[in-house]
Amino acid sequence: MGDHGEAVVKKAIEALRGAENEQLERLREFLRIPSVSTYAEHRGDVEAAASWLARQLEALNAEEVRLVPTGGAPVVVGHLPPPVPGAPTVLVYGHYDVQPVEPLKEWRSEPFAPEIKGENLYARGASDMKGQIMAVLNALEALTAGGGGMPVGVRFLFEGEEEIGSRHLADFMKKHPDLLAADICLNPDAGMLGPEQPAITYALRGLAYFELRVRGPAHDLHSGAYGGAVHNPAQALCELIACMHDESGRVTLPGFYERVRALSAEERRDLARLTESDRKILETAGVRKLWGEPDYSVLERIGARPTLEVNGLLSGFTGEGSKTVLPAVAMAKISTRLVADQRPEEVREQLEAFIREHLPDTVSWELEQFAAGPPVLCPTDSPGIRALSGAMETVWGRRPLFRRSGGSVPVGAYLQQFAGVDSVLTGFALPDDNMHAPNEKLHLPTWRKGSEALVYFFHALAAGQAEEK
Amino acid sequence: MGDHGEAVVKKAIEALRGAENEQLERLREFLRIPSVSTYAEHRGDVEAAASWLARQLEALNAEEVRLVPTGGAPVVVGHLPPPVPGAPTVLVYGHYDVQPVEPLKEWRSEPFAPEIKGENLYARGASDMKGQIMAVLNALEALTAGGGGMPVGVRFLFEGEEEIGSRHLADFMKKHPDLLAADICLNPDAGMLGPEQPAITYALRGLAYFELRVRGPAHDLHSGAYGGAVHNPAQALCELIACMHDESGRVTLPGFYERVRALSAEERRDLARLTESDRKILETAGVRKLWGEPDYSVLERIGARPTLEVNGLLSGFTGEGSKTVLPAVAMAKISTRLVADQRPEEVREQLEAFIREHLPDTVSWELEQFAAGPPVLCPTDSPGIRALSGAMETVWGRRPLFRRSGGSVPVGAYLQQFAGVDSVLTGFALPDDNMHAPNEKLHLPTWRKGSEALVYFFHALAAGQAEEK
Repeated sequence: MGDHGEAVVKKAIEALRGAENEQLERLREFLRIPSVSTYAEHRGDVEAAASWLARQLEALNAEEVRLVPTGGAPVVVGHLPPPVPGAPTVLVYGHYDVQPVEPLKEWRSEPFAPEIKGENLYARGASDMKGQIMAVLNALEALTAGGGGMPVGVRFLFEGEEEIGSRHLADFMKKHPDLLAADICLNPDAGMLGPEQPAITYALRGLAYFELRVRGPAHDLHSGAYGGAVHNPAQALCELIACMHDESGRVTLPGFYERVRALSAEERRDLARLTESDRKILETAGVRKLWGEPDYSVLERIGARPTLEVNGLLSGFTGEGSKTVLPAVAMAKISTRLVADQRPEEVREQLEAFIREHLPDTVSWELEQFAAGPPVLCPTDSPGIRALSGAMETVWGRRPLFRRSGGSVPVGAYLQQFAGVDSVLTGFALPDDNMHAPNEKLHLPTWRKGSEALVYFFHALAAGQAEEK
Repeated sequence: MGDHGEAVVKKAIEALRGAENEQLERLREFLRIPSVSTYAEHRGDVEAAASWLARQLEALNAEEVRLVPTGGAPVVVGHLPPPVPGAPTVLVYGHYDVQPVEPLKEWRSEPFAPEIKGENLYARGASDMKGQIMAVLNALEALTAGGGGMPVGVRFLFEGEEEIGSRHLADFMKKHPDLLAADICLNPDAGMLGPEQPAITYALRGLAYFELRVRGPAHDLHSGAYGGAVHNPAQALCELIACMHDESGRVTLPGFYERVRALSAEERRDLARLTESDRKILETAGVRKLWGEPDYSVLERIGARPTLEVNGLLSGFTGEGSKTVLPAVAMAKISTRLVADQRPEEVREQLEAFIREHLPDTVSWELEQFAAGPPVLCPTDSPGIRALSGAMETVWGRRPLFRRSGGSVPVGAYLQQFAGVDSVLTGFALPDDNMHAPNEKLHLPTWRKGSEALVYFFHALAAGQAEEK
């Protein structure tokens, strides 16, 4: 970076620090919108969050800001043209929808009334990912406010269905390739390893999410009058689910591991540098002991190995006390997390074949699918990742670690598939932020450092590209 | 029965038939009280049902009618003294509480707004067992109204916690032996085999009902961030439940069958006479195929074999759509039906030992018990059963069949244990009455015949005892 560049960045950082109160107020406003995409009753709130975001883009002087309708929640788009011909364009991705808040009684504050306690801001979506979106907008605002102007072109793409599997995103991308044209995608939906250890994520797991309903009798029966002579669908469901893993924790669906890419010795060595966090995983999960495939490290199990999870169970009587029913139906929410090169559509077939083979004809069943997103695996030596790595080192004083994330962000796979755009996956969420759980929070000092790092990133990206040319 | 006896019974039957409208109106009044013992919010309704019953006993000129407090719902008592010294005393047992109504949306009429359609009266508790209690009171009223007076002494014992395992009944009996003094107990909480086939039940299964909670992480986790490295308690619960039966449907708790009395060849032959109802069981259950221990007939599986059922399952996210949680806790309601000579307290120990052996230390667990009632097996040649058998033959024109019931009525075991009183188990519920399910109903013609049979029964019991003396 030349002297001029350094001065420009310095002023942008000053502008960023000078606007902290406004940034925080703006984030709180965003967090007050209960944009839960899972429930139809929140449809209006989801739309309100989209409109709110569009107004933020207009405030940044973005052009052609609009809400693009889909079969579900709209996609918010807009763009800032490249400052000079040949400057790179960054596609900024985010999702403005949030997870449901249940179980509500476990929250210590109202999920949609953001509350600061110590260094943390508590609210649903604070960390996943309204806070992350606002970190990017903070940085872009500061670049302008600092007087140096925008060093790169920016495209915005904010969806409202990420928490329900990005159902309409692939269709949207197929219809609007013009809105995806970019050199790189910045996706801040991943997180840090700790407040002092930034990270860049180069792999995300795919997701295929199902609801399985096993049906027995036509209606709930008296367990005394029929128990022992009618197959209990709750028992049948448990017996089926019990077969889905072997004793070592491996998933038993035939063919499930066939396309899984083996880890190279080099990658395993790199990932092994991260295992200091085993203890942290124990702590934040609140378990006494970890679990899983014995031949893989904990971080490999989470990031590089596919899994099958029971996300929910419901059958029969679940109120207080006792009711002696033999239930008519038993339901399980079952999801699989996939790694390169597994395909969600094949996993559905494997699951169906497994159920057909294992469920006896004393019960019937139906399988509904709610999400199908492929896994992502990105090159770690792209200009975007080099720029981000340097920016993070500047702010935290240490190089980011490269890692695989266990989470699923279908957009990454879609962008590779439909627009040939690789993603830089990062973000400033911490492992103890309670994402998808009660008392979700955002660590404000880390969030502010994150905004600074993004100021450096946008500059470094422009400078890096200029050097290469 | 002498001529005088015949005339007396004839007048009582006439009085019974003449009061049909009042009987029906009274039953509807009883059914309008939502006395669901399972839920604390219905506590007032349960008390109201007790008071309502006490008023009915007073109308019969019963003496010392009162509500005896227990740790839970009160026991309604009262008595009609023997008409002559040495006349037998019948203890009439009933429960005035009812099952919960969920799932409410499957009811075609309001559960507590009794509605007649065709020959049936629809309401929660119509068949189990407010209708049965009222059949006895109808008969007793007619005996007085007919002018012949009461042929036997009667004690009433109506509890309000049968549907939640008769929690306080054993304590009540230990405290009040004077209220149990009787020659025989008439318990009409069992049922018929069909509208034309009366039955007398000589065995009831015991019940031990549990809630098992398996705990994993301290709170719900993001299944992407932790899946594969933290043991999922829903999966652990399913794996545990799956071990509780072997492939033939036998319960695998060690020692579970140790005390089970084997069926004699004679009893198996008698029970085999009842197997015509296999098809009916299929129909009323609404299943394509029956299930269970292959070495036993369907009626043996239900009546003479112990079972273990999953009555409810709850874990994680169970709303519409998807939420990618790794649940903190998974709950199962599990109950065992027991046969002579199993002991509920031993079964609890067997279950606990089983859980300890099979659940890994990646999760923790707790077991709560809601009911513990021993099984009942009564002699089939007592004066009471002879009297009832004759009464039924008079009304239906065919001898009742003797059978074992799969249901559980702890009172029978307690009466044997604490007062040495055997029970006559009968009743006028039909197999398709939807007991414990939506759209519970009572078949009115059968109910009226039942009241008549009880008129004959009380007389025959007095006459039989007189003959023996």
